[in-house]
Amino acid sequence: MSGTGEQAAPVLRIEAARLEGFVHAVLTAIGCDRATADAATRAMMHASRHGVDSHGVRLLPHYVSVFNGGRVNKRPDLRVVAEMGAVATLDADHAHGALAAYTGMDKAVELADRAGIGAVAIRNSSHFGPAGAFAMAAAERGFIGFATCNSDSFVRLHEGAERFHGTNPLSLAVPVEGQRPWLLDMATSAIPYNRVQLYKSLGRALPEGTASDIDGVDTTDARRVEMLAPLGGEFGFKGAGLAGVAEILSAVLTGMKLSFDILPMGGPDLSTPRGMGAFVLAIKPSAFLPVEVFQQGMERYRDTLRASRTTEGGVVMAPGDREWAEAERRAVDGIPVDPTSAEAFAGFAAAHGVEWP
Amino acid sequence: MSGTGEQAAPVLRIEAARLEGFVHAVLTAIGCDRATADAATRAMMHASRHGVDSHGVRLLPHYVSVFNGGRVNKRPDLRVVAEMGAVATLDADHAHGALAAYTGMDKAVELADRAGIGAVAIRNSSHFGPAGAFAMAAAERGFIGFATCNSDSFVRLHEGAERFHGTNPLSLAVPVEGQRPWLLDMATSAIPYNRVQLYKSLGRALPEGTASDIDGVDTTDARRVEMLAPLGGEFGFKGAGLAGVAEILSAVLTGMKLSFDILPMGGPDLSTPRGMGAFVLAIKPSAFLPVEVFQQGMERYRDTLRASRTTEGGVVMAPGDREWAEAERRAVDGIPVDPTSAEAFAGFAAAHGVEWP
Repeated sequence: MSGTGEQAAPVLRIEAARLEGFVHAVLTAIGCDRATADAATRAMMHASRHGVDSHGVRLLPHYVSVFNGGRVNKRPDLRVVAEMGAVATLDADHAHGALAAYTGMDKAVELADRAGIGAVAIRNSSHFGPAGAFAMAAAERGFIGFATCNSDSFVRLHEGAERFHGTNPLSLAVPVEGQRPWLLDMATSAIPYNRVQLYKSLGRALPEGTASDIDGVDTTDARRVEMLAPLGGEFGFKGAGLAGVAEILSAVLTGMKLSFDILPMGGPDLSTPRGMGAFVLAIKPSAFLPVEVFQQGMERYRDTLRASRTTEGGVVMAPGDREWAEAERRAVDGIPVDPTSAEAFAGFAAAHGVEWP
Repeated sequence: MSGTGEQAAPVLRIEAARLEGFVHAVLTAIGCDRATADAATRAMMHASRHGVDSHGVRLLPHYVSVFNGGRVNKRPDLRVVAEMGAVATLDADHAHGALAAYTGMDKAVELADRAGIGAVAIRNSSHFGPAGAFAMAAAERGFIGFATCNSDSFVRLHEGAERFHGTNPLSLAVPVEGQRPWLLDMATSAIPYNRVQLYKSLGRALPEGTASDIDGVDTTDARRVEMLAPLGGEFGFKGAGLAGVAEILSAVLTGMKLSFDILPMGGPDLSTPRGMGAFVLAIKPSAFLPVEVFQQGMERYRDTLRASRTTEGGVVMAPGDREWAEAERRAVDGIPVDPTSAEAFAGFAAAHGVEWP
């Protein structure tokens, strides 16, 4: 995910713990069970703490709509419906995608703990937010975590002229002893859609080859963007192929909907479950080599990377470094809440008797 | 891998079966055991048949040098040195990388057949050639296959100004009933180095942001290229992160050398084993859902992809489609052998009493 350094100045900054308490209280007030409120709050706060605002607390009004509309189940009964050796299939009963993905990763870690690797295909899930949150849940316990999900079509194919894949994120988190993990969390599109929205509001030209107009023709005019390009520019078949990895693991291997069959996230239908899949995997390093050797390797890799020579004015960072730096800033300054979200939050506070910080 | 449509016209075209027999005979004549000659030939011919000439039979002279130099073991004793549940570690005894990777994938498929998923970390391997060949070995048996390897440094970091990662390929192959698999086989660099070499010979400008000069400054002049850029252009942190996935799985998780510690492929030292790792993984679709449902999903996904609307003059292809088309052409026209390789092959024929077709 790209950083938020270019975001427009926020009106409000709220201390993380208070914001977290508010989000949880709203979800509880609308009738979500404890596990659902915990997981949805945890995923949104992961994103809001680390500067990935597109998947942060600004999603709360959307989630409230789909819980109340019936698309997402407030009190789901998640069940492992198939299990064999080191793999399982989890039916999430149309749970919030974050509850489905955290539950799936818990199971993958349990499988990997005894088999060295574990994978869980998740059925009947919903929008899960930041893929990195679930990969990181494995890394926090000393496992390599991988998480992916497809989503409704918004990205064209290489040389394509219509929406085909979703932004289909891939995330890998790798534990580093006593430090923050190595954390890759990337959309397989050339550019995140929130960057397009930002450039539209700034009247700034997009980078070449990152987005297309309604005819699939590349445009740098953010106002004309109807679809994103796959990662890779002239070699966009690579980005489209990576989107396919997400598609195959999270939709084909789960028997769930392909991106072009998923109902749009924003409605108008907020009552029909979207039939989304997801896929999570955990690897236990100590099943392959002494964990000290693994940790020494990770430290040497990351330290050498951070010290690599840069272009003039350039900065090299390991995956995740931008997020950890932003998390430190936000731990001090609070989490920015945009005016639209702040207004919605005040409405929730009034409607449900929850105190708005 | 990019196609070879732009390659300079070859002098010779040799029928695939005859070329395969020649390569195998040369490897046998220099003292390689049967398994080594089989695996190295199979991997080179996979690449040569599918148009990935950079990893095809043009590597034979290099492989002969490193076998004779002692870097690569002509008669290795490959052993599974650790196994737990669904994972194993294979010590390849400095085998040819193709033998190591095919052997590792055989083991991963065996593990996945009983546990739903299987992963093998490979130690003491060497240059393995086309990653797709090993992923495809799983798909040919009905499993999803994944293969990756790091390699000596040639790609800068995002905003970096020195070689850091190798071209670190990632490959995923997915079976499609009764058809060729879905096959993604991509370097994590922005451009393949053979494209740079081709553009140099043609005097043609490289695409923007794909390669840098000795100071790490982007250049479109192929003659000044000292390092490649990571995939993604302005979002090159994604390509660098993907290179990191290859690095962590194939070097850190195996305890083998990081890219910047690997001896150069081309020498001068051709006797010291390079201490390279690799990582392969197999997934059994029927462990997750009925295999017919999986196959219907793959067919619908690939058929819809191939029919997706294109830009004017554009062509959309599923990963692998370019390679299957090239394989059909080459099955008729023969496999191109460039003049430098042809001269080396004639020399091997004379030295070892092997008939050169």
